[in-house]
Amino acid sequence: MSATTKARSKKKSYRIPATMKAWVLGDPGELSLVEKPVPQPGAAEVLVRIDAIAVCGTDVEIIWKGLPAIIQGGAPFNKNFTPGHEYMGTVVKLGEGVDEYQVGDRVTVEIHAGCGRCERCREGMYTSCLNYGKNYGHVNKGHRANGFTTDGGFTEYAVNNINTLVHISDEMSDEEATLIVTAGTAMYGLDVMGGLIAGQSVVVMGPGPIGLMGVAVAKALGASEVILTGTRDNRLEIGKRLGADHTINVTREDAVAMVQKYTNGGAQYVLECSGAPTAVNDAARMLKRGGRICLAAFPDKEVSVDVGALVRNNIYVYGIRGEGKSATHRAAALMEQKRFDAKIIHTHTFPLSEVPTAVRYARERIDDAIKVVVKMS
Amino acid sequence: MSATTKARSKKKSYRIPATMKAWVLGDPGELSLVEKPVPQPGAAEVLVRIDAIAVCGTDVEIIWKGLPAIIQGGAPFNKNFTPGHEYMGTVVKLGEGVDEYQVGDRVTVEIHAGCGRCERCREGMYTSCLNYGKNYGHVNKGHRANGFTTDGGFTEYAVNNINTLVHISDEMSDEEATLIVTAGTAMYGLDVMGGLIAGQSVVVMGPGPIGLMGVAVAKALGASEVILTGTRDNRLEIGKRLGADHTINVTREDAVAMVQKYTNGGAQYVLECSGAPTAVNDAARMLKRGGRICLAAFPDKEVSVDVGALVRNNIYVYGIRGEGKSATHRAAALMEQKRFDAKIIHTHTFPLSEVPTAVRYARERIDDAIKVVVKMS
Amino acid sequence: MSATTKARSKKKSYRIPATMKAWVLGDPGELSLVEKPVPQPGAAEVLVRIDAIAVCGTDVEIIWKGLPAIIQGGAPFNKNFTPGHEYMGTVVKLGEGVDEYQVGDRVTVEIHAGCGRCERCREGMYTSCLNYGKNYGHVNKGHRANGFTTDGGFTEYAVNNINTLVHISDEMSDEEATLIVTAGTAMYGLDVMGGLIAGQSVVVMGPGPIGLMGVAVAKALGASEVILTGTRDNRLEIGKRLGADHTINVTREDAVAMVQKYTNGGAQYVLECSGAPTAVNDAARMLKRGGRICLAAFPDKEVSVDVGALVRNNIYVYGIRGEGKSATHRAAALMEQKRFDAKIIHTHTFPLSEVPTAVRYARERIDDAIKVVVKMS
Amino acid sequence: MSATTKARSKKKSYRIPATMKAWVLGDPGELSLVEKPVPQPGAAEVLVRIDAIAVCGTDVEIIWKGLPAIIQGGAPFNKNFTPGHEYMGTVVKLGEGVDEYQVGDRVTVEIHAGCGRCERCREGMYTSCLNYGKNYGHVNKGHRANGFTTDGGFTEYAVNNINTLVHISDEMSDEEATLIVTAGTAMYGLDVMGGLIAGQSVVVMGPGPIGLMGVAVAKALGASEVILTGTRDNRLEIGKRLGADHTINVTREDAVAMVQKYTNGGAQYVLECSGAPTAVNDAARMLKRGGRICLAAFPDKEVSVDVGALVRNNIYVYGIRGEGKSATHRAAALMEQKRFDAKIIHTHTFPLSEVPTAVRYARERIDDAIKVVVKMS
Repeated sequence: MSATTKARSKKKSYRIPATMKAWVLGDPGELSLVEKPVPQPGAAEVLVRIDAIAVCGTDVEIIWKGLPAIIQGGAPFNKNFTPGHEYMGTVVKLGEGVDEYQVGDRVTVEIHAGCGRCERCREGMYTSCLNYGKNYGHVNKGHRANGFTTDGGFTEYAVNNINTLVHISDEMSDEEATLIVTAGTAMYGLDVMGGLIAGQSVVVMGPGPIGLMGVAVAKALGASEVILTGTRDNRLEIGKRLGADHTINVTREDAVAMVQKYTNGGAQYVLECSGAPTAVNDAARMLKRGGRICLAAFPDKEVSVDVGALVRNNIYVYGIRGEGKSATHRAAALMEQKRFDAKIIHTHTFPLSEVPTAVRYARERIDDAIKVVVKMS
Repeated sequence: MSATTKARSKKKSYRIPATMKAWVLGDPGELSLVEKPVPQPGAAEVLVRIDAIAVCGTDVEIIWKGLPAIIQGGAPFNKNFTPGHEYMGTVVKLGEGVDEYQVGDRVTVEIHAGCGRCERCREGMYTSCLNYGKNYGHVNKGHRANGFTTDGGFTEYAVNNINTLVHISDEMSDEEATLIVTAGTAMYGLDVMGGLIAGQSVVVMGPGPIGLMGVAVAKALGASEVILTGTRDNRLEIGKRLGADHTINVTREDAVAMVQKYTNGGAQYVLECSGAPTAVNDAARMLKRGGRICLAAFPDKEVSVDVGALVRNNIYVYGIRGEGKSATHRAAALMEQKRFDAKIIHTHTFPLSEVPTAVRYARERIDDAIKVVVKMS
Repeated sequence: MSATTKARSKKKSYRIPATMKAWVLGDPGELSLVEKPVPQPGAAEVLVRIDAIAVCGTDVEIIWKGLPAIIQGGAPFNKNFTPGHEYMGTVVKLGEGVDEYQVGDRVTVEIHAGCGRCERCREGMYTSCLNYGKNYGHVNKGHRANGFTTDGGFTEYAVNNINTLVHISDEMSDEEATLIVTAGTAMYGLDVMGGLIAGQSVVVMGPGPIGLMGVAVAKALGASEVILTGTRDNRLEIGKRLGADHTINVTREDAVAMVQKYTNGGAQYVLECSGAPTAVNDAARMLKRGGRICLAAFPDKEVSVDVGALVRNNIYVYGIRGEGKSATHRAAALMEQKRFDAKIIHTHTFPLSEVPTAVRYARERIDDAIKVVVKMS
Repeated sequence: MSATTKARSKKKSYRIPATMKAWVLGDPGELSLVEKPVPQPGAAEVLVRIDAIAVCGTDVEIIWKGLPAIIQGGAPFNKNFTPGHEYMGTVVKLGEGVDEYQVGDRVTVEIHAGCGRCERCREGMYTSCLNYGKNYGHVNKGHRANGFTTDGGFTEYAVNNINTLVHISDEMSDEEATLIVTAGTAMYGLDVMGGLIAGQSVVVMGPGPIGLMGVAVAKALGASEVILTGTRDNRLEIGKRLGADHTINVTREDAVAMVQKYTNGGAQYVLECSGAPTAVNDAARMLKRGGRICLAAFPDKEVSVDVGALVRNNIYVYGIRGEGKSATHRAAALMEQKRFDAKIIHTHTFPLSEVPTAVRYARERIDDAIKVVVKMS
């Protein structure tokens, strides 16, 4: 424990105002600061006072392009919708029947509260909830996705289903806690590929935030060769600091050949976080027979894929959305135990009043921004 | 048990000749009948007198194009190589240390005997053996794939590792027994997707032999909606006889729309056996979120794939080669129990002397040929 | 479809009375018929008009001994509590937000609606909900177990969370539909042991209702040797009719020796449904190395167990409570497809007015009773 | 890499004598030093020059009680048999077809080389090989278990199937390398329970070598609460040094109550390494519903078990023998990465000439001995 950690005073009650400042969507790319009523938590929910929120690439997409078509009722432009999902804060009010959390608890959030009633939720795959996005119509099935289908975190308060909460200790800073869901997504990607990665070789493609956290988690779990591929040397360098044994700049090197060399014949796992058009093909060629690919990113358009390579080499490909199977809890545990320093990817901080600037830094990677955090007061 | 089944007399010993007739590869498309020494079984091997062998599409590829590049030493044209892998027969000689089988046992064979020493074999994935094809060089790692890396079954006798054998009862005809490996491949495809298919919806794409057996196995295991897609009405009709609840002729109907309709919003599993260029995209659109695709076939070339659809919908894609995890034993058990009538796909029979004709029937689908069987005497 | 099946007229609405007849617990062994208000369905719930209900051995325990200690607030004697959980009926009213079912749908029910918010529910193991029984206090976590923690089915109407419902077709009789949850429990037992049972040997210990359904499901899924052990010849005979390849009367035969003989060296799976004191030891000895045991029953007291046998032989033992992982849906699918005739175990029928007699028949096995069904009107 | 690590000179060839010194079993408890021929490696085997070997509790049992009855041909007393299985050394000769290892490679060994041909080996469960112990008769199925069914390591040279080898780097000392198989057993125990232990609570019962390594591995993989129970304070203290968050001396404390307290209602996993008569019952009571127990130890006799507790609480119990699924490789990877200091449990060292003394130290725990290592020259 850092000697500089100061004791946090946990209050028993909080004064909650009637209204709050909130950024809402306008025309594409436009965000406006408005005054909204503070929402009230229902059964199995809590009200979270937001203390910090990180900007995710998906936020940028939502702000410029609107919500995915999957969400019924269409894009919420002009709908008073508040985006943002990588937030953390303090529980300030409990909904009915909640005793899992107490007022004053520090928490970070994952995105999805499944409906709890579809076939997927019933088998524990709540991030693939079949009622995703079906809470705008007359039949509310209870699914909530912070910042996607319900109001998100570029504001002062947010209601959260308790299923989306992760306890965090006083040891962890607000800024670091906003990174847990990113690390949790990477963790989930490794989990779905089988999980027994100690001593195995893992390639992470794409040194964005999820990719960098993928490097850190894979190394923390004992992967023996963690190889990071990307196009920007400064990002690759950060990957090294987070545990990559090797980095490959694909603009200068033949990534497939280098992976084959570093792994002595092929890697066991690829965590694809680049969205590059050639990623699936490259991944398949990096693997030994029977290897596995997890897709955590994807290109905008259809791309050319050598499907035969997947079949001939018995490769399994796992598309994932989000941070399922409580992976955020596992990621948070590793971070609490200081297994890696996620804070390395936190590069910039802005106040709530400067959300548009924060989003612009993230979108345009100004000043080599990786994770831009908005910190309240 | 059929009243017409006659008792088979099981002999205690067999006279084994010194040489045998065998078809061997010549120039592309050319097969020659030669006289070869009868091979001798080593430790953990038996000699099988071949009683029947079916022609597989892969045999046709090998005869016209040679063996896959994966096999070290290159294509075996002009190498005295005997193709053919879907055979069954009678154990006529035991190698050293074999007591799992007795002389006189009727057996059918799966293709792969893994090396038993690579990482894949060690975890039970012997069809993805990392030493596949590495038995032509100076270091023989012990992997054998009948008709691919070792001599196959268009001949009178073949040596088989005991790991490739499946006991069959006297109730089952020679012809039916040649179909077990095909049914086993379909079974494996369903297994890798999770296996709990009772009550679930399964789409089988492509009414070739594996696809048709996929229909039969899925239905035998209790899948509630089995939907077969294809281009030829007569094949689809056979699918219905094997248990398909619905068939879709993709030349006349919108397969994705029909599957969505039949399954009330998306299927759970797709077993892709068509190799069509649009198959992965179509499969992804047929599935509900969190669904799974098994690829048992593939197109010759790269194809355009909507990778984003796999990620956004949390779809897992499993490329498989062959009939792993002892799936042939499970398929054989269902066939022994008369859960489906695999013989429906057996359309033509030829003697050993007419292998080239048999292969031509299979290749050109003459007279609506599905499975063409070569029956010894 | 049977030619004698008559079309059922599905009504669009039902007249629901204000009160209903309901049996409630009194002193141990005592049931009284009272008039209760008809309950109202909340969000994600429906009101089911009960058409039939089977008596389960657990009902007998509850009536004589009260509810398990696990349920907070203690035993509900004198609490106006209505037991009974193996019921089926007709949806007559929808709670808020329900569109998965329609008024007029025929349904059968499983027992558990998990809380949806604990660690177990989040991973899909809702029958092990950590909030089981915690809905009597001031903090209602939402868990419901029909006839255990909420009112059950020895009455005219019951509220059910939609997660507990299984659609049934008009083809299936009310009586047969009451058996689905029993078959679902057996199905779940086979699922947790791995599920790939085609061609494998399965021993079922104990020819009670779950054991007999275990025989039927195992055979339907293609198990090659299904062996049933028990003490009563008439029950074993019923097991044969449901698909047992062999039966062993343990009062006359050495069950371990016979299983070893029938399976040629040991079975792969044991589904233990007897609760006999020697069951775990016997099961361990019946298995080949690496075999698996599912415990669906248990003795009242501690018993002597050879733990070393489990370790030396690498045996896995799965205790299960109930019918998790939506196994009832898989069981219902097999029954809809007529894979086995569950009705064989339905032996007696009584009207609602004679519930105490029905319970007595089940408890005392009067007239060789197996499943006693209470049929409304 | 430690600055003090000296480069090891890897030789290209080694002079191998015709005979070697070897300890062999005599009467119970008796070991004699004899001269034996140095064995020759066959196909898929290498000859290992033994550099160090640790004494395992099972060695003590073999020396005093003979080999388990499972091994056909009975106990090998007076059979010229050399026990010992936790050894490491240097590859000095390659058998036919071996290119996975080179002469001069440093390796440690796991115990089991499965037969590769039984149902268990075919599914990757080679430690449960159905042909275990069947290599003394006239039919050699190829199974080898170092120091159990084939000569072991209390000698100068041993033949090993390549499947039993684990590469080790020059960074790791001989003594530490002998501990890998112990850590691998603990790793396997955690693997079979599901593997996703980051952030989860793990109780390890019994601070013997496997238990202590269980603590270390669980912590290395991110378990949040690792609790060690035992009777000896000095051992518990060592557990703390290896990562235990809490220790419980069961002679003074109520272990079940303390675990419930430390875990806030029950642990997720118990790794039982004590063999105590009450261990299964205690473990069941320490777990939350749906928890899991791995049995890596067992009492000599039958014990009283509350089977009902396993069923009512949906507990799974996994008996394991040995270090399956290549867990030694995962353990070795963590040790190579210095995730924990296994050397803490190495307490004593003796030369080959003093094997009986080494065994006595281990057996009688003289001078608080934990792991006693025999170091050659």
